[in-house]
Amino acid sequence: MALKGNCLVAQSGGPTSVINASACGVIQEAFKTAEIDKVFGAVHGIAGVLNEDLFLLNDEKPEEIELLKVTPASALGSCRYKLKSIEASEKDYRRIIDVFEAHNIRYFFYIGGNDSMDTANKVSQYAQRVGYELKSVGVPKTIDNDLPITDHTPGFGSVAKFIATSIKEVGLDARVYDYPTVTVCEIMGRNAGWITAASALAKEFEDEAPHYIYLPEIPFSLEKFEKDVKAAIEKYNYCVVAFSEGVKNEEGKYLSELATENAAVDSFGHVQLGGASEYLQSYVQKNICKKVRIVNYSSIQRCAAHLASLRDNEESYMCGQAAVRYAIEGHTGKMVGMMRQDHPEYKCTTELVDLNDVANKEKKIPREWINAEGNFVTKEVTDYIAPLIKGEVKLNMENGIPRYARLEKKLIEKKLEVWNVK
Amino acid sequence: MALKGNCLVAQSGGPTSVINASACGVIQEAFKTAEIDKVFGAVHGIAGVLNEDLFLLNDEKPEEIELLKVTPASALGSCRYKLKSIEASEKDYRRIIDVFEAHNIRYFFYIGGNDSMDTANKVSQYAQRVGYELKSVGVPKTIDNDLPITDHTPGFGSVAKFIATSIKEVGLDARVYDYPTVTVCEIMGRNAGWITAASALAKEFEDEAPHYIYLPEIPFSLEKFEKDVKAAIEKYNYCVVAFSEGVKNEEGKYLSELATENAAVDSFGHVQLGGASEYLQSYVQKNICKKVRIVNYSSIQRCAAHLASLRDNEESYMCGQAAVRYAIEGHTGKMVGMMRQDHPEYKCTTELVDLNDVANKEKKIPREWINAEGNFVTKEVTDYIAPLIKGEVKLNMENGIPRYARLEKKLIEKKLEVWNVK
Repeated sequence: MALKGNCLVAQSGGPTSVINASACGVIQEAFKTAEIDKVFGAVHGIAGVLNEDLFLLNDEKPEEIELLKVTPASALGSCRYKLKSIEASEKDYRRIIDVFEAHNIRYFFYIGGNDSMDTANKVSQYAQRVGYELKSVGVPKTIDNDLPITDHTPGFGSVAKFIATSIKEVGLDARVYDYPTVTVCEIMGRNAGWITAASALAKEFEDEAPHYIYLPEIPFSLEKFEKDVKAAIEKYNYCVVAFSEGVKNEEGKYLSELATENAAVDSFGHVQLGGASEYLQSYVQKNICKKVRIVNYSSIQRCAAHLASLRDNEESYMCGQAAVRYAIEGHTGKMVGMMRQDHPEYKCTTELVDLNDVANKEKKIPREWINAEGNFVTKEVTDYIAPLIKGEVKLNMENGIPRYARLEKKLIEKKLEVWNVK
Repeated sequence: MALKGNCLVAQSGGPTSVINASACGVIQEAFKTAEIDKVFGAVHGIAGVLNEDLFLLNDEKPEEIELLKVTPASALGSCRYKLKSIEASEKDYRRIIDVFEAHNIRYFFYIGGNDSMDTANKVSQYAQRVGYELKSVGVPKTIDNDLPITDHTPGFGSVAKFIATSIKEVGLDARVYDYPTVTVCEIMGRNAGWITAASALAKEFEDEAPHYIYLPEIPFSLEKFEKDVKAAIEKYNYCVVAFSEGVKNEEGKYLSELATENAAVDSFGHVQLGGASEYLQSYVQKNICKKVRIVNYSSIQRCAAHLASLRDNEESYMCGQAAVRYAIEGHTGKMVGMMRQDHPEYKCTTELVDLNDVANKEKKIPREWINAEGNFVTKEVTDYIAPLIKGEVKLNMENGIPRYARLEKKLIEKKLEVWNVK
């Protein structure tokens, strides 16, 4: 017989357009599950658990819960708090179990990236060690698509769709003039270039943007970059470059580091923080052409739920649901993975992944999926990404803009002594 | 009896999400008009006319012409070439009339902003002076919404809708953490703050973004800004600020000028171009809080046709159609203006505006539409903008991203001697 008790859902790491769809999947599935009584949310992830900052999702309006399906960012609240190893900080783990015990929480669903999967795993291990019956399951989420084993991660399809669309539009915008222009587009991704690679989907014809794609997987050379851009200007009179924020030169230095190395202190006594885009802009202005526009997607890209991928959205919800079912079946220390079937047509199902196999590993773009010159991706990449950006989410428009969920998050009365994680 | 002959349509200035919808209105209406035979497009606006770089829109595929309705940027090509006065550069005007005469162009439709309206006017005047029968009508276009007389301008509703939506999303993204964060959002608008003001539509509740709106219409004070941001951080633990790129301090200096005043020469021998956002980021980091994110909408905002306003889109098309009808009725030296009726419900019709009344005047946000503190807009602004962002354009999605028009633009054989505007 399955374990009975309450459950807790929490979110962590950087927001995405669909992390709330996963939360909605967990919550609505938990509501339907006989073994689960109350559904708690933790405000600000594991930090909220430690602080006993909990609220009841059963008390939220069902229509707001439903709206979570289309709402970007982390509606429960996120954190960057990183648990140390059990050995290094057992009191954190003891506290988590104390909080769980105080509220009879027997199911823990943690939606997040690599660090959060690690947390879900360690909490599961510690519960077993101290003999507290708990099922802890991780739900993957990251725009970076850099988790191992799982075919892709919830959140990636939506950012990929937005980037491909916007680069198409920015490309049309960049080519209207009769003088040469260069546009440098900075896209998220510190170590893996998946999001930047998605810009390739914007390109149907040779003259279209992006003309070049520079990824963290390939050492960046200014000389090669200059040659590339000049060739595009020569041919098309404009050049749109998509590059990952995490691009590094041959010595392993980030372009943003190079930008600040020679930077002066500004009028506020601060080092002027030129980013990678400013670095490239300055280089192009000096060596190639004067008209250089910076397009930095910053947080716009990861919360553009108005253009979320329907497939990503549905799969994210499915992962949330699956987490509940796996936990009820008795699994713990596991993550919901996604398995792809490409033939005869794309289909995605969930699978159980051992969290020990996931923690602290990164999935980068394989070298053979990048062209020989290292300045564009191959058809393997666009074939891989194309099914993930399919379909559009139907939005609830109100007065011309999307209506997103608004939770009350009324904190429950605390049962334990005060704890203060900041 | 109306004048018979060919017509020419051209685009100028910065792209928008709907300037092609206006072009489509002109083209499709011209196709239906008995008095108009061929429909020429000029590549790169008036520069293309001078260069005799013309192509036939009759030769383009009808489905691509139809796609112009939803395609962002300037599909015909734009320019920044500014005609001098007739006195100062009569040879330019003579050349334009020569090109028109060589191709029997009797109708000239120029879609653009303030400068383009001025060009349409001067070309009309010069044609009259030299006795060349021509009807020249301007179709307004500018995301800035800064043209006088017309209630609003095609292009504004779409950028307003995108900014309001994205600021809502960025606001949700900015508030997920348990530590204080400041987000500075830089929005287009050198002298008029209409686009930035549209961000107010994102805010439904007091705790929502944007917390403050800084406009070029109000002198910017760093002290007031600091007080504002600290108050929001105190109350909400996050602060999202929307400001126009054209914000100036009490001495009339752009923030971007202040940013570069003390900037050093970078490693490429260039002055490090910190923009207004970097200036505010640095100030906040020194005086308020460490976590500051820059969101600079750059060209993303003006070409985000994937979220164009249906109303703006339809009105832009209507303005293109109206231009043709006004010209056929014999009007010249006029611009299509937009008249609003708000009661019993919003309705917009076109009107004829004398181009002499439009040229070189700017419509800014009236002082009484900005709050007393100068850090937000009043309900008059949101009431004014709300109808303009209504409805969503149906996109032609292909492989998960919008399919936009692709014109051939096969240049016709030149009849005159070579001319070379760059």
